[in-house]
Formats: sequence, C-alpha cells, structure tokens
Amino acid sequence: MTQRTFQLPAIDSTADAVLATRLQHNIDHKTKPLGALGQLENLGLQLGLIQRSEALAFERPQIVVFAADHGVAAEGVSAFPQAVTVQMVANMLAGGAAINVLARQHGFALHVVDAGVASDLPEHPQLIKRKMAHGSHNLATGPAMTAHQCHAALQAGADVLASLPGNVVAFGDMGIANTSSAALLLHRLAGVSIEDATGRGTGLTDSQLLHKQVVLAKAAALHPAATEPLDALAAMGGFEIAMMTGAMLQAASERRVILVDGFIAGSAALVACALTPAAKGYMVFCHRSAERGHHLMLAHLHARPLLDLDMRLGEGTGALLAWPMVQSAALLMNEMASFESAGVSGKDA
Amino acid sequence: MTQRTFQLPAIDSTADAVLATRLQHNIDHKTKPLGALGQLENLGLQLGLIQRSEALAFERPQIVVFAADHGVAAEGVSAFPQAVTVQMVANMLAGGAAINVLARQHGFALHVVDAGVASDLPEHPQLIKRKMAHGSHNLATGPAMTAHQCHAALQAGADVLASLPGNVVAFGDMGIANTSSAALLLHRLAGVSIEDATGRGTGLTDSQLLHKQVVLAKAAALHPAATEPLDALAAMGGFEIAMMTGAMLQAASERRVILVDGFIAGSAALVACALTPAAKGYMVFCHRSAERGHHLMLAHLHARPLLDLDMRLGEGTGALLAWPMVQSAALLMNEMASFESAGVSGKDA
Repeated sequence: MTQRTFQLPAIDSTADAVLATRLQHNIDHKTKPLGALGQLENLGLQLGLIQRSEALAFERPQIVVFAADHGVAAEGVSAFPQAVTVQMVANMLAGGAAINVLARQHGFALHVVDAGVASDLPEHPQLIKRKMAHGSHNLATGPAMTAHQCHAALQAGADVLASLPGNVVAFGDMGIANTSSAALLLHRLAGVSIEDATGRGTGLTDSQLLHKQVVLAKAAALHPAATEPLDALAAMGGFEIAMMTGAMLQAASERRVILVDGFIAGSAALVACALTPAAKGYMVFCHRSAERGHHLMLAHLHARPLLDLDMRLGEGTGALLAWPMVQSAALLMNEMASFESAGVSGKDA
Repeated sequence: MTQRTFQLPAIDSTADAVLATRLQHNIDHKTKPLGALGQLENLGLQLGLIQRSEALAFERPQIVVFAADHGVAAEGVSAFPQAVTVQMVANMLAGGAAINVLARQHGFALHVVDAGVASDLPEHPQLIKRKMAHGSHNLATGPAMTAHQCHAALQAGADVLASLPGNVVAFGDMGIANTSSAALLLHRLAGVSIEDATGRGTGLTDSQLLHKQVVLAKAAALHPAATEPLDALAAMGGFEIAMMTGAMLQAASERRVILVDGFIAGSAALVACALTPAAKGYMVFCHRSAERGHHLMLAHLHARPLLDLDMRLGEGTGALLAWPMVQSAALLMNEMASFESAGVSGKDA
C-alpha cells in the first residue's frame, strides 16, 4: 500500500523587524502611559505582524469543533461514558452547548467536524463529515491510529480549514477521553512526567485519577519509539487532535489569526509547533485551563494566555471568551489617539 | 455652618439562600461537567442574586469616568504633569482615549464627570459638571478636602448615578496623582504598609517611587485620626474617588451590576464596602491592575478579578474589557441546554 504523506504547508514567519518597530512606535505614542495596556499591547503587535499591517481588520470569524471518540475510553479513564461525545455533538448541532451560546454572542460561524465519532451522525448544515473511523484504537493496547490515518487526518483538517472563509479561526474539541491523548502528547513531546501531565478531565475522583495515570504510564511505555511529532500523534493522539493539527498548520499558512482554546486544542498546537515552529506566531493562546497539565503545556510553548478562569470545558469556549479582547487589542491599535494628535503632554523630564 | 451629611442609601443584601440553591441547581444541570465553567459559574450565580432572577437581562450599560486633580501632585508623586488630567478629559470628550474605543466596541454610553479638575472645562453633551473645587488640597500638608466637601462629593456621585439609565454601570477614573490617594486609603482602611500600597502609577522610576513613598508616609502621619472611612476619604482621598464612592453606593441601592475597574475605582469600592458591606454583592471586580498595591486591595476585599493582563491605565478600561465575560456568564445561564433537555448522559456512577 502506498503511504499517503501529508505535505506540511509553507508557513511564513511573522517576524518582521521593520514592521515591528513601526507598530511598537504606534503603540508607544498612544495616549496612555508607556506599557499601560499590558498584555494587550503585545497582542496588538502580534496581530499587526500576522496581518502585516498597521490597520487591523477581522473578517468572518470561524469556530471549528473537532469531535472524535477514543478507544482508550474502554480503560475507564473518563468520568463520562463514551456516548456523551455523540450526544454533545447533537447538542451543538441543536444550539444548546456552551460553545453555541458564545458563538452566537460573538458572531462566529460554527461547524462541527466529525473526525472520528464512534456513532454515525445524520446530515446537518453545520456538520462536516470527515470520519476517519468509528473512534481511534485503544492506545493502551496499540497505536491509536495508523500512520496512514494520521496523515489522512492532518490532510482532512487542512482541507476543512481551507474551505472556510475569514481570517480568524478558533479551534475547539469534543471527545470523551481525549485528555488522555493530550496528556500523552505533552509527556512525549514536552518531557512532562505522566503524573504532571495527567489531570481529572471531566471530573475524575482521586482514585480514578490514579488509575488514569497508571493506564497512561503503561500506554507511554507501549510506544517508546514514537518520539517524533507525527509518530507520537499516530501512536497516542486522536482523530480530532490530528485533524486540528492539520487545520492549524493550514490556518497559519494562510496567515489567519488562530485562537487556541485549552488542553486539547493546546495539544494540537504543540504538535503543530513541533512540526513547524513558525506556526506559533499566528497563535493566540486564549486561556489557561484548570486541567492539570495545561500550565506546563503553555510554559513549554512560552505562551502566556489571556484568561485564567478555572475553566475546563473545551469545545473552544476559552477561545471565544477571549475573542473580545483580541478585538479590543486591534481596535485600540486602530482608533486610539496619539499624544500629538490629542494635544496631551508627555511624561515629565 | 450646618454640616450637610450624606445619607447612606439603603442597600439590600444580595444573599438569598433559596434563590442561590435554585440558581446553583440550574448551573449544575447544564450540559457540561460540574464546575467546568469555573469563575463564570460564580459570576452567573452573583448576577442572578443581583437581579433576583433566573433569567438575566442587561439594559443600557453606562461607563462613568470621574475626573479630578490632586493637590499632592505638587509633591512630584506622578510621572506626568497635572495638565494631563484636563487634556485627557478633552481626549475622552473627543473620542480618542482607550476608554472611548472600548465603550464604542461594547455599546456603553460614556460620561465624564468633572469632580474637581483644576481647569475649567467647556460644555459638552458627555460632560457632567460637578466640580467640587479646582483640585483637592495637598494631602501632604493638610486634609485633601473638608468634611463638608466630602459629603457633598458623595451626594453628587449618588445624584449622577441616579440620573443615568440602565442596570449596569462601569466606573473609571482620570486624575494625575490619584494613585497617591488610593494608596493612602488602602494603607489606612486595609492596614497595608505604605511601601506595599505605593506603586509606580503612570511610570515612576525607582528613585521617584522612593520619593513617593516618603511623601505618602509623611501624609499618613499627618492624618493619624482619620481612621473611619469618611474621615480617611476626606483627609487623603480625592474628589473623583469620593464621588465614585457615592455613585457605587447608589448603584448598589438600585441593584445595578457594578463593574469595578482597577486601583482607583477599587479604592472607591474599598470605602463603599467599609461604609456598607452589602454593597460588595453588587460589585464585579473586573481586573487586577499591575499597580503595586492592587492585589492587596483585592485580597482585602476577598475579590478574585476576572482579568489579569498587567494593565495599569485606569479610565475604566479593565472594567469594559471584562464586560463581554459578564455578558457570557448571563447568556450561559439563560441559554445553555440541560442534560435532560439535550438528552446527554450524566457522569458514570
């Protein structure tokens, strides 16, 4: 059988010293003390570098929720039964999930991608069918997917992204047991211990958490050779994570602003940045999840998130909550007066 | 001369065990793991208690920026000259300040209150003229204001608030040297040392910061008897802080949601809560400022802010940045499906 290989999209670096100097000059001459807008100033600078412009504009923002099931759910690593994945996809398509509320609030078009849900799903205008399989294999007994499936999932994610309009895209997830895959990717690609990488997910008890750690330690030991990003993704990832990784790389190659949600979207960002470090310049890390390993994932990526609200829901909810601040950063860049234009005195000498 | 006394408005406690139980039940049965929306769940509960309702609605949100000058500016405690207060008021009335950008973004009506700017201001439809004096007295050489002025400022703030429509109000400030007043109020009312309460404001150097600490230590020693909230406010406060305190108390008495900005608005909240602890139930603490003493102020108030973005601009900018999250909390309460209505399975037994 021929191995279909995902071609990494070409991603420009956002680094541009000349433009960065011009943007920083604009920021520093606005009517506020130097640095007084804190993290929003860094964000404004990043947005200018992504859009290669001093005049920022967002168009047709998209939220894409990648959903899949995980064979490892059979090991009892989640507080909720596997059936919840498809039930929550249905809830999203009916408009009742948290992410629907936030998408409506902020005017995001929402699509759910069936990347590998274990049940069949009916047609729906907001559902994009890219099912790789009825759930991944149990990564505690073998590889989660074949290399072929992994490449196909990356390509499907890139294709889905390319089919969507706009220059801002938020990524969310749905998949019972997917914190197990994210924890393993964090362990393998960032060198975080299984204990530190493994959290309670949707709400494990102490003893269930210990069990999950035992399962994940065994799984990590089962895949010692999976040290390269794509090998780790195939062995221990999930279809939604693989597809999201491809979609993020494609979004970066198109110079879109990428809104990264929490632990699961973060694991896709981790793989994407391991494959192409330049992708990181396009990513806005929106929140720090309460899931145990997420702060270590962010630290590995040298990312400071915008929000820290003890959330651990996924779906892209953290990304959309932070979106108005991304807009604010852009509007402040575009609209604030300068000391000169407003006739405001500078600092005393 | 008769002493005009500000009558504290009657403020209902937001505590309501029966309603709180009902709200928490609603939150816990929404389609998400228990507690997965983190701080937004506490916020949703608080909003329900403020509005005494399970169906939340916001109307005609207001941002009020209280502006005043401070005699203590003569001691060289600010990096910017006093003239910046009136220049920034003009910038706000022209629409060029950061707070204008955010007010436009989020549909807030903006008013600036001249509580005691040192210069005279022309008429403007967004300017509310309540000038108590052309700046406060230098609190390092005597009381910042008389008891009479303090009561009149509290009353003026309450009157301004009562004249505005809507059920949400954000408070901002403008006033060169006003971090000195806020630091002294924090010191006196919360027992924080002058060193820990005193920060760089708009950008003092190390030696300027030391000078500011010396000035404030001297000022605190000058007013040893000003230990009660209103005595401290008169001796070491400012007109914008006093007026904001009256406005916050009035807003709480009208059961409005109060969006508290950073260090200066926080100092008004500190005084308001010292006068009437029930006011705190109406306050949403929107962000943690980078100004040195602010985290201690929030700790004293047992408040966990929504944002922590290293901002230190004032004007109400932190309050308006957090506003979309307040809306999100309400929308999630109103619109999310329950496990039952969405047909989603609960946690495994």
